[in-house]
Formats: sequence, structure tokens, C-alpha cells
Amino acid sequence: MTNISVDRCAELLKEYDNYLILTHRNPDGDTLGSAFALHRALSKLNKSSMVRCIDDIPAKYSYLWENTDNGDIKFEKIIAVDIADRKLLGDSFNRLYGEDVFICIDHHMSHREYAENLLFGDRAATAEVIYELVNALGVEIDSGIADCIYTGIATDTGCFTFSNTEPSTHRIAAEMMEKGADFALINRLMFETHTMSYIKLEQMALSTIETYFNGRCALMTVTQKMFEESGSNEGECDGIASLPRKIEGVMIGVTVRERVDGTYKVSLRTVAPYDAAKICAALGGGGHSRAAGCDFDCSLDEVKSILLKNIEAELV
Amino acid sequence: MTNISVDRCAELLKEYDNYLILTHRNPDGDTLGSAFALHRALSKLNKSSMVRCIDDIPAKYSYLWENTDNGDIKFEKIIAVDIADRKLLGDSFNRLYGEDVFICIDHHMSHREYAENLLFGDRAATAEVIYELVNALGVEIDSGIADCIYTGIATDTGCFTFSNTEPSTHRIAAEMMEKGADFALINRLMFETHTMSYIKLEQMALSTIETYFNGRCALMTVTQKMFEESGSNEGECDGIASLPRKIEGVMIGVTVRERVDGTYKVSLRTVAPYDAAKICAALGGGGHSRAAGCDFDCSLDEVKSILLKNIEAELV
Repeated sequence: MTNISVDRCAELLKEYDNYLILTHRNPDGDTLGSAFALHRALSKLNKSSMVRCIDDIPAKYSYLWENTDNGDIKFEKIIAVDIADRKLLGDSFNRLYGEDVFICIDHHMSHREYAENLLFGDRAATAEVIYELVNALGVEIDSGIADCIYTGIATDTGCFTFSNTEPSTHRIAAEMMEKGADFALINRLMFETHTMSYIKLEQMALSTIETYFNGRCALMTVTQKMFEESGSNEGECDGIASLPRKIEGVMIGVTVRERVDGTYKVSLRTVAPYDAAKICAALGGGGHSRAAGCDFDCSLDEVKSILLKNIEAELV
Repeated sequence: MTNISVDRCAELLKEYDNYLILTHRNPDGDTLGSAFALHRALSKLNKSSMVRCIDDIPAKYSYLWENTDNGDIKFEKIIAVDIADRKLLGDSFNRLYGEDVFICIDHHMSHREYAENLLFGDRAATAEVIYELVNALGVEIDSGIADCIYTGIATDTGCFTFSNTEPSTHRIAAEMMEKGADFALINRLMFETHTMSYIKLEQMALSTIETYFNGRCALMTVTQKMFEESGSNEGECDGIASLPRKIEGVMIGVTVRERVDGTYKVSLRTVAPYDAAKICAALGGGGHSRAAGCDFDCSLDEVKSILLKNIEAELV
């Protein structure tokens, strides 16, 4: 298992004809955009592939696979996209496929190797790596592929707001617009459209905000009760974790989300120089320097107390 | 009074040495970013200028004039930036300066001529026109100018989400990043930072949302009482008008804001093909096809009834 170049990756992909493309659990715009861009590119090379995710894919992403055949096939090789760690395949998928991944295409600095790696840790999104790969495969980017790549780039950069955005990110976006990406529709679906139930959930969540350490840390809680009362669900609240950091003066924003099984999913968003990945790694999680996460299986009070102790150490 | 080319505009600017640069009332990131980019560029040509606005400039924009001298000077000529109509100078500024504007630099399709016009109606932001002008002036873009141009572009496109965004918008943004624009800080200040008082105001405003015409129109009200109770103010709620359109299915989002003097400021945000500028123009206002505004001096019930009648006509 080694890091491979984009040209070597293109060579390897040309050797087989039938691929299973896996996304990470709780799929987001980058893992899905990357997977379907690759699916579409492989199809242009007359290769078969199917994209699979352990969790349901939210309906708002359906344009990504429009006019493609994502039916069942007998695959020869497995490709993982935007998956920093085998565990993020989800338990049963990790057991089924985790040891047999042929190539992993990713952009996470915190990546834990489990296959041949096409890894560009300096890119804002895995979709940027896919852009290079599609070019290396000699596939012409059509409007469908452009939609997929634009989606990955836009969602992983908070539509070009986050500090991970590079000049190259903007230039690839410009090119995808020229290739026909329906960027206004995509941005509206990804960033501007919320259900009334989500808006209610956001209002409930905002009312739980507590600040610590002279207002430099804000902690917000989302409970199963709030999901019930608002009628919202996990699938529609991708962006909720960005709310606590939006408060003036907050350096570390924390969102604690209660899962159906009573465990907690924690998301951290930080302002430079505070390192979200470092805090989460110490708690068994991982991610990027400004956006990371970890899991807890204990009471909410314990979750908060452990988090705040670790955050205080980082803030000092 | 004619439309002039960017080269002709650069020639004209080189003929005088002392300029008053005016922004529109209720200043936003594009009028301010454009004004201070020009102020900085003129200073590199050893010309004096001062930027003035009839309203107070919110403190969050202070980085735009950092390390520049924006003191009083005896000016020879007046430049207006991002001002589609003399009236938008504000009453007293319009009386004082409106007839004497030398050059107007703008990007509004709805522009009403009142000076020599450098007008690119197809650009996402006046800051894009300023970018062309700064190049035509032969001024090298430094990090200060880059911050100003990036700010104008990013704010007028909702950070590249709106349909007015062009491939050129992304490419100029990429170049501004390379010239040293502190894009992550700017984006955080412009899009990601809210005071607790604003967050409270948003919660109050969201609770007033009413939907009409099978959920295709959403109307939100912001009253002076809400400003009092939340502790928020006009200066910190630039983005609030974008909220109603964010609800799934809404084609026309309306925000009715009560002013201190009891009049109402209405902001419309639409989804294609619905034309916000057309609806507002019929009511004495103006703007862009997806974002426009108008004013009312009557009761809130009358405001709503007139608006809904005009919106229904557009939706049919």
C-alpha cells in the first residue's frame, strides 16, 4: 500500500472493467459528488460501476446520478472516495469490504492508509482530486460530471468561505461552470434551501447555546426530542454544526448531537490557530484542522465535561 | 453623459488629483469595497481622495481602510460607486452632490444615468468593474486592494452562491487570493460572524414567517420592537432578507423591515424566472432580477396587501 500519482491511478483504473465505488457513512456532498463524478467518467470509458453507501442518500442529491445507471453489477475491484479511515465505511460495510479496497481517493491529512492511496492532503475537497483524475483518464468533462465536481468542491468549502479554499478551488469552479454545472441550482439546494422543520430545529438548537472561557467556546445541543418536536431529521441538518462558531468572539464551536441509540456525535468547528482535528483525535475522532468530529457513549453531562476539559487545554 | 470604456475612464481619472468618492446609503460590501479599492489605487498614483457615505459605515468593514488616509481634502471631482440612482446617495448627499457627479462606476442593469458612466451590467459586482479599472490605471494590486475587491465580489454574490456569479467572478477571486486577500478572515467577518443580539433577532423574525400561494411566497416581518428586544440594529442585519427564500418551495421571499420613522423597507429575493426588479420597479423601487427592494409609507397591513397583489400577478 503506497501513495500513487494521479497518472498511476488512471493506469490502474484502466486495467479493470467493473467497479464498486464506496462513499463514507452519513454521506455529504464531497463523498457523493466525487463518487458519481467517477461513476460518470468510468461510464464514458465503457466501464461499469455502482456507487454504494451504508446510509440512505438524502434525496436532495438525486441530480448527481440523474441519467446514469447505478444498478447492481458484479464488480471486480473496490474504490473508496473521501474515506479517511476504513471505519467510516460504517460497521457492516467495513466488515464486508474494508480489507479489499483497491484504491482510495482522498484529501484528508488525517488519512489512515488501507489501500493504494491517491491522496492530496492540500486540496479543499476530494472532488478536486477527482477533477485531476478525470483529466488524467482523458475523459472530457460534461455537464453531469461538472455538476458532481462542483458539488463536492462547493460543499466541502462552505461555498468557498472556509480557509481550506485555494485559488485552484475557484479556478476549478469557474471551469465547471463553463462545462455546464448548474451552480445556481446546486448552491440553492445545498446552501439556501431548508425545510420549515429544519428551521424549527435550528431555532430550538440555538436556544441551547452555552458559552465558556470568556465567550471563546460555544456549545450547542441537538437532542432526539428536538428532532421529534420539529419534525426534522439527521439527513437535513448537515450544516447545523457550523452555527456555534458564527457567534462573534467564538474560536471553538461545538455541536453535540444525540443519536437515536442514545450515543452522541460531536462536531467541532474552529478558527485558526485552534486545531479541531487535534482535539478530536485525542478523543478518538479525527478530521480537518478547522472541522473535525468524535463520538461518545456516555451521558450528556459527561460528554460536555470531557469536551470542555480538552477544549480548555487547547485554548490556553 | 455617456457610457465610457474602462480605458477612457482611466484617462479621465488621470486628469485630476483630488477626488470625493461616494458610496450608496445603507452601505454594503460592494459599494464600500469598490470605493476603498479605488481610494487605494488613486493613492498609488499619488492622487488624494476621500470616501464618504451618508450613513455610518459598520465597524466590521474597518479593514477596508486600514493603513489608508481617509481624512478631509479639498476635492475637484466626484466619483460615485455602485450607485444605480442619484437618490441612493441619500437625501442631503443627493442635494449636495447629486448634480455634480463626474463619473459613476456601477453594475446595475436598472441604472439611471446621472454622470459619465462606467457601467458593466453583466458583472456580478461593481468591484469586478473596479478590478478592470485598476488594471487599466496600471496600478499593481496589493493585498489591501485585493481585500477590497474580494469583499465586493464575495458580498454581492452571497459568497459565490447567487446566480449572478460568473466564471470570471471566481477567477478574479482566485487572483485576489494570490495577491494576498485575507479571504478566510473576510468571509468569516462577512458571512460567518453574528452577534448574539442578531441571532436573537433572527429567531424573532423567523417566527413571523407567513407563506402564500401554495408556499411559493414567504413573507417575514422585522419590527422596531424586535430590534429593541433583541438589542440588535440595522447595521448588523444585512443578510436577514435572504432568510424567507431559504424555505423549501419558496420562489419569492419577502422581508418587510420597519424603519425608525415608521416607514417600511421591503426586500425581495427570488428564484428564476421570477423577476424581483420588475415587481419592485412597479412599486417605485429597483435592483437586480433576483434581489431588489422598494419603500412604503403606509400601514403594515397595507404594505402586505399591496405586495401580495403584485407578487401574485408575477407568480401567475
